[in-house]
Amino acid sequence: MKILVIGASGRVGTELVKQLLADEHQVIGTTRQKEVLFDDANYSQLDLDITAEKDAIQDQMDKDIDAVYFVAGSGGKDVLEVDLHGAVKTIQATQDKGIKRYIMLSAAFSLDTSKWNSPGIANLKEYYICKHYADQWLVNNSTLDYTIVQPGALKECAGTGKIAIDESAGENSIEDVATTLAAVLTADNTIKQAFNMHNGDIDINEAVATV
Amino acid sequence: MKILVIGASGRVGTELVKQLLADEHQVIGTTRQKEVLFDDANYSQLDLDITAEKDAIQDQMDKDIDAVYFVAGSGGKDVLEVDLHGAVKTIQATQDKGIKRYIMLSAAFSLDTSKWNSPGIANLKEYYICKHYADQWLVNNSTLDYTIVQPGALKECAGTGKIAIDESAGENSIEDVATTLAAVLTADNTIKQAFNMHNGDIDINEAVATV
Repeated sequence: MKILVIGASGRVGTELVKQLLADEHQVIGTTRQKEVLFDDANYSQLDLDITAEKDAIQDQMDKDIDAVYFVAGSGGKDVLEVDLHGAVKTIQATQDKGIKRYIMLSAAFSLDTSKWNSPGIANLKEYYICKHYADQWLVNNSTLDYTIVQPGALKECAGTGKIAIDESAGENSIEDVATTLAAVLTADNTIKQAFNMHNGDIDINEAVATV
Repeated sequence: MKILVIGASGRVGTELVKQLLADEHQVIGTTRQKEVLFDDANYSQLDLDITAEKDAIQDQMDKDIDAVYFVAGSGGKDVLEVDLHGAVKTIQATQDKGIKRYIMLSAAFSLDTSKWNSPGIANLKEYYICKHYADQWLVNNSTLDYTIVQPGALKECAGTGKIAIDESAGENSIEDVATTLAAVLTADNTIKQAFNMHNGDIDINEAVATV
């Protein structure tokens, strides 16, 4: 498949592109960095500015893209322009381009504001408000075949190939989050679904099949 | 009518409450200030924290309120918590309480992102993103009988009783904005409408009737 990964140079983006290339997909990665991130014949790169207008974003998208991943994030530095408004413009551009599949990297309980008093989230309230309204846009205001993947805290530790998908929060190996995002691509049961995930002991493909 | 004014101590809120009391409505004003803002038998006051959870906001609303005005604003200090998420929670609380009418003070071109490159708006981008998604929520995700009033820059100058409602931007007498908000209350033609306004030469009631 031909896949657009928005935010290819991020911590999750880098791992995701690696997995998608290993799965023999054709990957277009977007980043503001000039240097090409991956040396692979199936990889190409786009300098996509998601703070630009929606039409400018849409013009840079190829028509024959099969799926879009949004794994960009401002790291708390520009949550309104990137995590909220930037994300929504990519949703609108994807839809208006005629692409159906959109996979969003979000955060645990992004859609469930009743959980936002927990200490891990209360410190990230502004980030959470932005992720919330971007995810809400996907759910309520788009016609896309979306999946929203909601891990808790992301950690730079080796993947185990095993996760848990349930209503509790927990830490996540970035590598396992990337493997989960890649597994979602062909798991049609995840279409129009959002799910919380964290490190666990169920094989990733098996866990994704239960969504 | 019994009217809830969220943000009664703001620059527009103060003028709006005055006009609603002059029109012999019963007004409940919300503010974080302890001192009672208006000495009038038809006025009462509520310490409503719109950064609280939606259910807490809803619990403080009387069931027999006929209309809610949202004229609160963080003045750029807390746009995500107040101008976006706070506003949306009041929309949800109003709807879930069974109240139908909701009048939002917004900003010129809040719903038209193609106009955001103009200098007056570009400097207020984060504020505009928040107003945009709050207004979008009202339009797309609520069943309320809303009106969205979108003035350009607000100025502390005497009202003339005259405005213009059209697709251009311009300065606004705060007093005239308050008179316009008050006029909208009984103008059913403004239900499910958003309109730009600025200082002009058409009588306010006459201008509102053209929406």
